[in-house]
Amino acid sequence: MTKIILDVDPGHDDAIAIMVAHKHPEIDLLGITVVSGNNSLEKTLRNTLNICTWLGVDVPISAGMDRPIVRDRYLSCDGPGDVHGETGLDGHDFGEITAKTTGIHAVEYIIQTVMASEEKITLVPTGPLSNIGMALRMEPKIIEKIERIVLMGGAYGTGNVTPSAEFNLYADPEAAHIVFSSGLPIVMMGLDLTRQASCTQEVSDKMAAIGNRASELFVNLMEFFRGTQKREFGWDAPPVHDPTTIVYLTNPELYETTHCNCQIGLSHDMTYGRTVCDMHHVTTEPRNTHVATKIDFDGFWEVVAETIRRYN
Amino acid sequence: MTKIILDVDPGHDDAIAIMVAHKHPEIDLLGITVVSGNNSLEKTLRNTLNICTWLGVDVPISAGMDRPIVRDRYLSCDGPGDVHGETGLDGHDFGEITAKTTGIHAVEYIIQTVMASEEKITLVPTGPLSNIGMALRMEPKIIEKIERIVLMGGAYGTGNVTPSAEFNLYADPEAAHIVFSSGLPIVMMGLDLTRQASCTQEVSDKMAAIGNRASELFVNLMEFFRGTQKREFGWDAPPVHDPTTIVYLTNPELYETTHCNCQIGLSHDMTYGRTVCDMHHVTTEPRNTHVATKIDFDGFWEVVAETIRRYN
Amino acid sequence: MTKIILDVDPGHDDAIAIMVAHKHPEIDLLGITVVSGNNSLEKTLRNTLNICTWLGVDVPISAGMDRPIVRDRYLSCDGPGDVHGETGLDGHDFGEITAKTTGIHAVEYIIQTVMASEEKITLVPTGPLSNIGMALRMEPKIIEKIERIVLMGGAYGTGNVTPSAEFNLYADPEAAHIVFSSGLPIVMMGLDLTRQASCTQEVSDKMAAIGNRASELFVNLMEFFRGTQKREFGWDAPPVHDPTTIVYLTNPELYETTHCNCQIGLSHDMTYGRTVCDMHHVTTEPRNTHVATKIDFDGFWEVVAETIRRYN
Amino acid sequence: MTKIILDVDPGHDDAIAIMVAHKHPEIDLLGITVVSGNNSLEKTLRNTLNICTWLGVDVPISAGMDRPIVRDRYLSCDGPGDVHGETGLDGHDFGEITAKTTGIHAVEYIIQTVMASEEKITLVPTGPLSNIGMALRMEPKIIEKIERIVLMGGAYGTGNVTPSAEFNLYADPEAAHIVFSSGLPIVMMGLDLTRQASCTQEVSDKMAAIGNRASELFVNLMEFFRGTQKREFGWDAPPVHDPTTIVYLTNPELYETTHCNCQIGLSHDMTYGRTVCDMHHVTTEPRNTHVATKIDFDGFWEVVAETIRRYN
Repeated sequence: MTKIILDVDPGHDDAIAIMVAHKHPEIDLLGITVVSGNNSLEKTLRNTLNICTWLGVDVPISAGMDRPIVRDRYLSCDGPGDVHGETGLDGHDFGEITAKTTGIHAVEYIIQTVMASEEKITLVPTGPLSNIGMALRMEPKIIEKIERIVLMGGAYGTGNVTPSAEFNLYADPEAAHIVFSSGLPIVMMGLDLTRQASCTQEVSDKMAAIGNRASELFVNLMEFFRGTQKREFGWDAPPVHDPTTIVYLTNPELYETTHCNCQIGLSHDMTYGRTVCDMHHVTTEPRNTHVATKIDFDGFWEVVAETIRRYN
Repeated sequence: MTKIILDVDPGHDDAIAIMVAHKHPEIDLLGITVVSGNNSLEKTLRNTLNICTWLGVDVPISAGMDRPIVRDRYLSCDGPGDVHGETGLDGHDFGEITAKTTGIHAVEYIIQTVMASEEKITLVPTGPLSNIGMALRMEPKIIEKIERIVLMGGAYGTGNVTPSAEFNLYADPEAAHIVFSSGLPIVMMGLDLTRQASCTQEVSDKMAAIGNRASELFVNLMEFFRGTQKREFGWDAPPVHDPTTIVYLTNPELYETTHCNCQIGLSHDMTYGRTVCDMHHVTTEPRNTHVATKIDFDGFWEVVAETIRRYN
Repeated sequence: MTKIILDVDPGHDDAIAIMVAHKHPEIDLLGITVVSGNNSLEKTLRNTLNICTWLGVDVPISAGMDRPIVRDRYLSCDGPGDVHGETGLDGHDFGEITAKTTGIHAVEYIIQTVMASEEKITLVPTGPLSNIGMALRMEPKIIEKIERIVLMGGAYGTGNVTPSAEFNLYADPEAAHIVFSSGLPIVMMGLDLTRQASCTQEVSDKMAAIGNRASELFVNLMEFFRGTQKREFGWDAPPVHDPTTIVYLTNPELYETTHCNCQIGLSHDMTYGRTVCDMHHVTTEPRNTHVATKIDFDGFWEVVAETIRRYN
Repeated sequence: MTKIILDVDPGHDDAIAIMVAHKHPEIDLLGITVVSGNNSLEKTLRNTLNICTWLGVDVPISAGMDRPIVRDRYLSCDGPGDVHGETGLDGHDFGEITAKTTGIHAVEYIIQTVMASEEKITLVPTGPLSNIGMALRMEPKIIEKIERIVLMGGAYGTGNVTPSAEFNLYADPEAAHIVFSSGLPIVMMGLDLTRQASCTQEVSDKMAAIGNRASELFVNLMEFFRGTQKREFGWDAPPVHDPTTIVYLTNPELYETTHCNCQIGLSHDMTYGRTVCDMHHVTTEPRNTHVATKIDFDGFWEVVAETIRRYN
């Protein structure tokens, strides 16, 4: 059992990450922390509560940073390609929210949970790294209690919000710097990888055939996502970035990765927030990151389907 | 009565700031928060407890950030001019510590205290701005409950740790950026001002003549400081940077200031951490800072002497 | 006939670029200018004279910049992967040099030649852009007499001297900035493209079968290059970067390109010298560059072979 | 006799520099080179020809760079405080121009003149350093034939076009970097010094009393300058920046200087173009620059008056 804290900013693909993390038999989802990113904290929190209510996810949910640590706020809905709609999670009718928050700040929740745990905990952020970065700096002792950080973000090829940068890390480059320079092992699911994890019509049909509450949510969200990703970026099948982190935890054999140095661009120019990955080892900087490069498409979606089948 | 939280990294001049803040009849010292800077957090905390024990300062003391928010740790004792000695507060024999810490993280203490107060609170940081910056980002609602921030740091002339930068702001430029871009009124006691607030032999003799527990501490610390400032920087009389903030709170008429835009250099080059002050208004950027330029030397030291006389 | 000035820093692949440019029936090689880059100007000039002597290239040859415009000198032979050997062009025994230089500085030669020409001239730089950048700034009137600039340099994927940058543009980023911001149409043969133009054993055998003076030079140089590229970078077949520019002039149908904005990283950090290419048009910056993405391998080498066959 | 090339962008204070350099008995003015800066090259050239015609300065005049080496063009007349008027040299009626240019580019002129001279030559730039920077890079051999570079530009205090930077160096920071990192001795007359060299009413009256062609020009230009400097910057007496370089050549005893390291801010942020002067030696960087800090006001103006008296 891998103990994880999932840090999200839903977001359609965050929803699928929660869906998989909750029911995967080898994952112990200790809690969910929420950060602003795809949309304002108010909306990403409401979306998280909606998802957890619908799926029956009964774990502590804590709201965190409503802005990045240093830079000005930059929300995905303000940038090129608003793919999540008005609520930040359009496409499904959720009904009344019954899930609740802990009332504890996400940064505090992370620190308390990690410090109190006997086993090491894996952090899985699928949004900007503001919560994780703050926790690492506010209580550096958590570092030795963290197993590793498996995150969605970055790109060694071209970005999606600037030519250089992917949204999650562009939205809080200084937080990303704290994470990548923490000394902890990092596994990075960047755009290069996640663009391979697309939800084709066949995938969508496969999930629809499962016919339960979770598959209904999956299909509704992905059909909405298909439309906006097509309109904004021209993708025929939407990339489903975030759940690639969860599946990696239990099925790393489905991935190819390169172990190399990765640093975050901190100059306030057109390279701000870039993940500079030394893929060909032209420097001698320490290899701090496993950068994912290839995914087994069928294997990945089968793991997702298996967990969806576990919902009643 | 001005309600303040004093954020310190003692340091000889921090000690004098605590000394004045504690006994000044127009200042309500709610609590002291401690940050790393002149030395490690372990040492700045011990020094704070020593000072408060010796002077009978019975307010909540909370330890905070042991490193800057983004950059690598940079302590004054590692840079050019280690002026505070082995303990970070050499020159006085303090005896046993009886003062205690709250056990609450300084960032939490600031947030809780400000949010719980009916009146607005003034923050007075005399070290790196790590605690203040973290609090402003973790709970942005405190901004409307803060009166202003009166800080020691920066320089519009030349710096003291690089040609561009003063130590406190160089030690955490990103925290400084958070503070200066917060929208709060800032009063900046930079090197340009604090180098005028030197402790001459006459000043030292005047304090010695008071003849109480506080004046004894004053003289011991300043005599040590005189020696190291002379050795490291060639000053005949040591600049006593930090208490200029406290005296400004009650006696602003002793100061000249320029109201102008001030921004923090964030490029990782030789201007990192500089306070770029638009003293002559060549830009149209908003005037966010009152930059102190001149101090009434005699008036300043008389206020310090008055408060020292209040100790028994 | 396309009138060109070829700006080189030989270098093995520069030699092939000269070889093709000289004998291609649709190219009018007006002159050759030499720049430091793969090696010192002294060596790149000697190599140019050797190549021209051996191949009977009788055009004006002018030595230019022996260092970049702004940054410190950075030669390829000093970086990771010295692939050109001691002379900068090891592998062939050239005999006595008979070719001569004009004695005119390359920057002056470019300005005079372009200004004197009735037709527009195409500039083809295959080394650092120091000569071209200086000429554009010293006499901006040449801009309206230049057809376009077809260059070897840059990468939208990973670099070869830093994780971000390719050697030619890293060696003089400010010169590259002058070129890319000049308003002239740029065609960029970056590493993404040139790594496809590899000299396999089959290619080498094909050229060897031609059996003339030029093919002898080709084979000797490429066999040396094969060894060093294998040793330094692990390539089985060496990428032959520079002649892709020449073949593009006459056979653009062998290439795929993306028309987009491209800017040069000028911050002195790990992104210095990067070609930030907006391949997916996420910004609205003007499309100044045709970035080559794919080459027809067989078609490319056939054009090279055809010109080699023209040597007696 | 100090052999100099004077590099100017007139400009009112450049005119006075020419006036003094031409008639000073210990200065051998070899030639004048012109650069864009206070205004376009077209205007600064016309102004130079006007000044030389009026004063009878019969030396080679060569037009040079019409823009900076790397950055976008930034003319003084476009920034805060257009103090030179429509022509760039308003206030005097010059009559017909008879002086002529060499037709040689200033960069070429500098290279040829320096290389041809048996004695070392001093370069005296009073505008942006574009011509000098280009010459140093195009022919590095001139470095050993240059005595030193005595320039007007920079500030260790606050700037005049940004809070950080003085106009001349902000207008071409990369050229400034080439100059300051050339290894040549630099003498820097920054704003800190030149603001002391103000043309008070007494000074103006003193020159008027001389009553020749030169003094007439002096008074007309300074009266115009007085008005615009008052209107734009609030100065009662206009600072006369540029001739401080010339007087320093012959009368260094009238100046106080600090020998220290000085580097140019190259980050494209609010510190771009700053002269970062290590006035207090807090780093161990080499001392490449003599930064002028104080001038003997009366002595300076007396030298100016003496040379003006030499005109008939």
